[in-house]
Amino acid sequence: MTQKPSIPKGTRDFGPSEMAGRNYIFDTVKTVFRKYGYSPIETPAMENLSTLLGKYGEEGDKLLFKILNSGDAFKDIQQMPAAELSEAGSNALALKVCEKGLRYDLTVPFARFVVQHRNELTFPFKRYQIQPVWRADRPQKGRYREFYQCDVDVVGSDSLLYELEMVQIADEVFRNMDIRVRIKINNRKILSGLAEISGQSDKLTDITVAIDKIDKIGIDAVKAELAERGVLPESIARIEPVLTLAGTTEEKIAAMRHILEGSTTGMRGLDELEELFRLIREAGVAAETEFDLSLARGLNYYTGAIFEVKALDFSIGSICGGGRYDDLTGIFGLSDTSGVGISFGADRIYDVLAGLDKFPKEAVRGTEYLFANMGPATLPYILNAAARCRAAGHSCEIYPDPAKLRKQFEYADRKSIKYIVLAGEDEAATNELTIKDIIKGEQKRIKISEIF
Amino acid sequence: MTQKPSIPKGTRDFGPSEMAGRNYIFDTVKTVFRKYGYSPIETPAMENLSTLLGKYGEEGDKLLFKILNSGDAFKDIQQMPAAELSEAGSNALALKVCEKGLRYDLTVPFARFVVQHRNELTFPFKRYQIQPVWRADRPQKGRYREFYQCDVDVVGSDSLLYELEMVQIADEVFRNMDIRVRIKINNRKILSGLAEISGQSDKLTDITVAIDKIDKIGIDAVKAELAERGVLPESIARIEPVLTLAGTTEEKIAAMRHILEGSTTGMRGLDELEELFRLIREAGVAAETEFDLSLARGLNYYTGAIFEVKALDFSIGSICGGGRYDDLTGIFGLSDTSGVGISFGADRIYDVLAGLDKFPKEAVRGTEYLFANMGPATLPYILNAAARCRAAGHSCEIYPDPAKLRKQFEYADRKSIKYIVLAGEDEAATNELTIKDIIKGEQKRIKISEIF
Repeated sequence: MTQKPSIPKGTRDFGPSEMAGRNYIFDTVKTVFRKYGYSPIETPAMENLSTLLGKYGEEGDKLLFKILNSGDAFKDIQQMPAAELSEAGSNALALKVCEKGLRYDLTVPFARFVVQHRNELTFPFKRYQIQPVWRADRPQKGRYREFYQCDVDVVGSDSLLYELEMVQIADEVFRNMDIRVRIKINNRKILSGLAEISGQSDKLTDITVAIDKIDKIGIDAVKAELAERGVLPESIARIEPVLTLAGTTEEKIAAMRHILEGSTTGMRGLDELEELFRLIREAGVAAETEFDLSLARGLNYYTGAIFEVKALDFSIGSICGGGRYDDLTGIFGLSDTSGVGISFGADRIYDVLAGLDKFPKEAVRGTEYLFANMGPATLPYILNAAARCRAAGHSCEIYPDPAKLRKQFEYADRKSIKYIVLAGEDEAATNELTIKDIIKGEQKRIKISEIF
Repeated sequence: MTQKPSIPKGTRDFGPSEMAGRNYIFDTVKTVFRKYGYSPIETPAMENLSTLLGKYGEEGDKLLFKILNSGDAFKDIQQMPAAELSEAGSNALALKVCEKGLRYDLTVPFARFVVQHRNELTFPFKRYQIQPVWRADRPQKGRYREFYQCDVDVVGSDSLLYELEMVQIADEVFRNMDIRVRIKINNRKILSGLAEISGQSDKLTDITVAIDKIDKIGIDAVKAELAERGVLPESIARIEPVLTLAGTTEEKIAAMRHILEGSTTGMRGLDELEELFRLIREAGVAAETEFDLSLARGLNYYTGAIFEVKALDFSIGSICGGGRYDDLTGIFGLSDTSGVGISFGADRIYDVLAGLDKFPKEAVRGTEYLFANMGPATLPYILNAAARCRAAGHSCEIYPDPAKLRKQFEYADRKSIKYIVLAGEDEAATNELTIKDIIKGEQKRIKISEIF
């Protein structure tokens, strides 16, 4: 039986050229993570559903891929009274046949890992983790059902030096990739302070959404939208100075100190932010950094600093983001463990690098040398030369058959191989090789010992 | 609600020290694969069940992890007549609620990949693939439900140079790891020839199993076992010379030429084998290689060379194996595509390296430098020194708080950090650093510019 092969929707195959680009990204971030003392961990693709359920909201629970129990999975369902079965919801039935699910992100498995292994770990525990996650989202452009996350976190300390480290890591990663970025920074405590002084803490989301639109629609439209969203006129009046906040980070912080004077939490957030910007200056971070009050990602999750990185020369969503969280591990029984981390968006970074043509040629190039196959007579000579080539640290291939040279050259061309090595009986007799540089179109004959 | 965290049975977390060892293994094999012109690919964790089912035998089908459809998965089951539902087998019901499964190996997804992308690929297509696979096996010591496979294959050529490449790759990988190995080689055509001349082709498995036991139980016991397994006396007589086969690879091949004289297939297998051993000599393969007639792994799958690698100094099953297959992609509609490949057993290699204490110290060591935190006064100085340290290509951390030095030293010790850098106001005033080598117990004070 012949099948037309395909893969599940929302998933992808990565061929050699995509892998070269993706490995360049992963290798770059890993090198930086290691330089800052972060170590890799890996957790299983499958977690117990009890670990995952309830951690991502009701919508998230629905997006978990659940794994059918092995063995006699349907026993319970087969024994259900017919009326009960036909009434049952699919979530309830799923729990009767599934105990495991695929991980939805790397954060919850990390929290589970830290708690489960807390007696073996050294705190502050600095880890990075680069693994795929799975979400039963409706697939669409740029959204996949399987994608890699690339997280770096430290837990077990509330030192602001770690906020600095996250900024330094983002700076260094994108500098190494030659992507110009702006690192936007906010602090959840400042947003809480803002809600506090507005007198309408429940409208915090509406307020941040509105602030975010100032540049696009102007202050009057924003005020109208706030009113429409149920923010009272007196609240709008109290936060109006925020809406017109402008200037440098220092000026914005100074202005916010007046606005948030009445909120202890807000003032604490400003202290943290000011200290972080001081550390950023002292450490010599090269990227643009900016206090962005509208930054509110993961509002219910972060408790201190919030980060987001935008590419300056390519239009795409944020390519990196994260923040400080104070109780990630509480749900698994380890409380008061503060952490801070960021996550790099590999797919978007890939698009930026491809769009700006910034993938280094050497990172995506394949084999360096193709030894043409000139038939059995010189094969021993070529085998020896290829072994020397590899021993010298190069990559090379021998064409598998003594095919027409045109065919062998075509193979080299399609694989972007840089040099073709020709070694007939002539060359073999003099311990030489003829090396053709395909890019330059040059050809030279040289002693083996001079090249490999 | 507090949960006691755990992971599904048969799965594993890998912490920093295990990851260091595993990454050493993966990096070593990748480096060798690339040197021989193999490129990485990745396929999705989930495949359509239609791709996977029927490829691994009935037992394999049961061991597939199936993924519950998202949305209203149970509609069909809820509409089944009660009698039909209670009679249905769990496999039939599984197919009503699952369309996808987790990959069981990398071979079938690779075959699917080659056929699906055949118009974009350059043949011979040389790929490696290092990804986890999942099997609902009963977990036991050394057998996991999630484990990495590490495959290297070339498809689209029947050149014996690729058999040689597999032997060279295995040789170079284990040489680079300093593991002494024996590479055993056989050829499926020789086994077919043997079945042919025995007159009982259906007893091939029994015959190879028996041959394998010669060293352990002796020729008489093997003959008795063959008889017990239904091999006829005249067949036993015909293959008896095989049972006493001894000597060097050359001698064994010569002896087999007499035994298999009547079998065209068998003689072709011997030709291939002889040619491969000649190539192995010419290419200067360093590892011991040996013709092992009892090698019969994947009997129904391989069509030419069969490989297996055993560690000489550590008792464990084979740590690498593979062979030539002629119709891997036929099931997906692309026939006559011959390939050859081998697979490295990462978990067993890990055990060998750990057992022989062969993990290189630098591969498993963490951060190089810990900058002690001496308080806010010298923090700017330390931030600057740490930045220089990283710019010079080293890894370093700054301790997050100005804690007691004893605590900071303990942290360095637990993380196996090699150097502690002390920089108080004294050092800052003279642009120096005090560097303590923890292993040697030595300490020296040095100009920043002389070290970073």
